Amino acid sequence: MNATAKYDARAKAVNSLLCVGLDSDLAKLPQPFLQCDQPQLAFNRHIIDATAEYAAAFKLNSAFYEAAGASGWRQMAETVAYLRERHPDILIICDAKRADIGNTSAAYASAIFDRLGFDAVTLSPYLGWDALAPFLSYAHKVSIVLCRTSNPGGADLQNLLVNGVPLWQAVAQQAAQRNERDNIMLVAGATYPRELAKIREIVGAMTLLVPGVGAQGGDVAEVLDAGLNSVGRGLIINSSRGIVFIADPAQAAASLRDRINAERRHAP
Amino acid sequence: MNATAKYDARAKAVNSLLCVGLDSDLAKLPQPFLQCDQPQLAFNRHIIDATAEYAAAFKLNSAFYEAAGASGWRQMAETVAYLRERHPDILIICDAKRADIGNTSAAYASAIFDRLGFDAVTLSPYLGWDALAPFLSYAHKVSIVLCRTSNPGGADLQNLLVNGVPLWQAVAQQAAQRNERDNIMLVAGATYPRELAKIREIVGAMTLLVPGVGAQGGDVAEVLDAGLNSVGRGLIINSSRGIVFIADPAQAAASLRDRINAERRHAP
Repeated sequence: MNATAKYDARAKAVNSLLCVGLDSDLAKLPQPFLQCDQPQLAFNRHIIDATAEYAAAFKLNSAFYEAAGASGWRQMAETVAYLRERHPDILIICDAKRADIGNTSAAYASAIFDRLGFDAVTLSPYLGWDALAPFLSYAHKVSIVLCRTSNPGGADLQNLLVNGVPLWQAVAQQAAQRNERDNIMLVAGATYPRELAKIREIVGAMTLLVPGVGAQGGDVAEVLDAGLNSVGRGLIINSSRGIVFIADPAQAAASLRDRINAERRHAP
Repeated sequence: MNATAKYDARAKAVNSLLCVGLDSDLAKLPQPFLQCDQPQLAFNRHIIDATAEYAAAFKLNSAFYEAAGASGWRQMAETVAYLRERHPDILIICDAKRADIGNTSAAYASAIFDRLGFDAVTLSPYLGWDALAPFLSYAHKVSIVLCRTSNPGGADLQNLLVNGVPLWQAVAQQAAQRNERDNIMLVAGATYPRELAKIREIVGAMTLLVPGVGAQGGDVAEVLDAGLNSVGRGLIINSSRGIVFIADPAQAAASLRDRINAERRHAP
C-alpha cells in the first residue's frame, strides 16, 4: 500500500479528511511546555494524543523545527517516531517545500523519507521534474507539489499566463501526466476555491493538500464544493493554528472534522 | 556593510570570484574522516583550511547535512561558526532553496540567518514575493532567488513563455524591480550562458550565483563572457565536487580561481 492509499484508507476508517498541522513555533508554545527538555516534542505529543482520533493526517512544517536548531530537528524526528508507533495508519507529511538538482534532491529525499520516516513531503516545482524525480522514485511515498498556494503573493508567478493558462494550471497538467504511480498530490490553497475546482477538473481523482482553512480565511463549504473527487474524498484539509494553539485542541479538531463532514454530505 | 558589499570587498581583496561548495555528502567523504565524531565538520575544516585563501565565498548545501539528521544540522552550524571565526570577510551561503508563506518563511529566515549565522540563502520564487519578504527584511543579509537553474529539467517551468518571455526572465525582471536594498542576487546556471547573458542585461550590476561549472559541464570562459558586470565582477562562481572531492583541493581551488581570472582579463 503506498502512502496515497494509506491516506485514503485512514480517511475512510475514521471518516475524516482532517490534517492537523503541527506548526509548533517555540514562540507560541504554552508556558508549561517551555519548561520541558524538548518543548516541541512534548507539545506535539499532547496535541497528537488529543486530536489523533479525528485526524487522517498530521503535517509538520519543518521551518518551525529548524528554527530551534539541531534540537528542533531531533524533536521533529521524535515526533514522527511517536506518531508512527502510536498511529501507524495516519499519513505523516513533512511540509518542507524542497527540491534541488538531482543528486541534492536525492539527499533531501533520503533525509525526509528514510531517516525521518515521513510518508509524504511538499515540493516546489520551479526546478522542474528532474529535480522531483528522486522523490518520485520512492513509489510507496507521496510527493506533494505546490500548485496554487494559499498566499496572495502566490499570484506573482503562479498566475502568469503560459499558453493561455495560468502557470498553476500548467503545473497541474504536468503533474497529472506524470502520476502513473499514483504517488503525486498537489497543494491547492483553500483561499482560492475557483482555482481548486479547476485543479480538480485537470487532475481527476488525485488527492489535494488544502492549507489555508481557518487563520488564512479559507471557507470549508467552498473547499468541499470545489475540491471533492468523485468518491467524495481526495482532499487533505489542513488546519494548524486553528487547532494546536486553541485552548481545547481536541474540541477544535472534532468540530472541524464534523464541519467538513456536514458539508461533504451537501457537496455536489 | 551588507552581505552584497561583503562579497564584493572579499572578491576584490583576494582577486577571486570563486565559491567553494561544501556539498559534504557523507557517502562521498574520504575514509579517514568517517572515523571522526563529526565527519562532515572535520572534512569541512580540512577543505576550508586548504581553499579559503582562494575563495570569496563558501556555500553549504543543507540537503547533505539534513541527510545526516540532527547531527548533520549541528555540523552545518559548527562549520558556519568555524568559517565566521577564521574568515569573517568570506561570504557564507546556505544553499537551501527555501520559501513558504509569511509566518513560516520568517521561521526559516530566523533559522538560517539568526541561528545558523549564514550571510545569504538561496530561495525558490514559486510562492511569490510575500513569501520572500521575511528574508528580504534582513537588509544586511542576501536573498539569492532561483532564476535559470543549471539542470536540464529547469526548462519544464522556467522556459514557459509568459507575455512573450520565458518565466526565468519574468523572475529576473521582478527581482531587479525589488532590489532597492541591494540584497537580492539570482541563481543563473553556468550550463546556460546565453540565458546568463540575458539575465545580466536585465538586472544591471546585480551579483549572480553561478553553479554548474565543472561536474555539470558549464564552461568558465562562456560564463565570464556572458555574466561579468560593468566593473568586471558580479559573479559568484561555485564549484563543489570539482574541488572538495579532488585529491588536492587547494590546487583545484587555486587552479579554478586562476582560470577564472585569466578569462576575466579577456572578457569584453
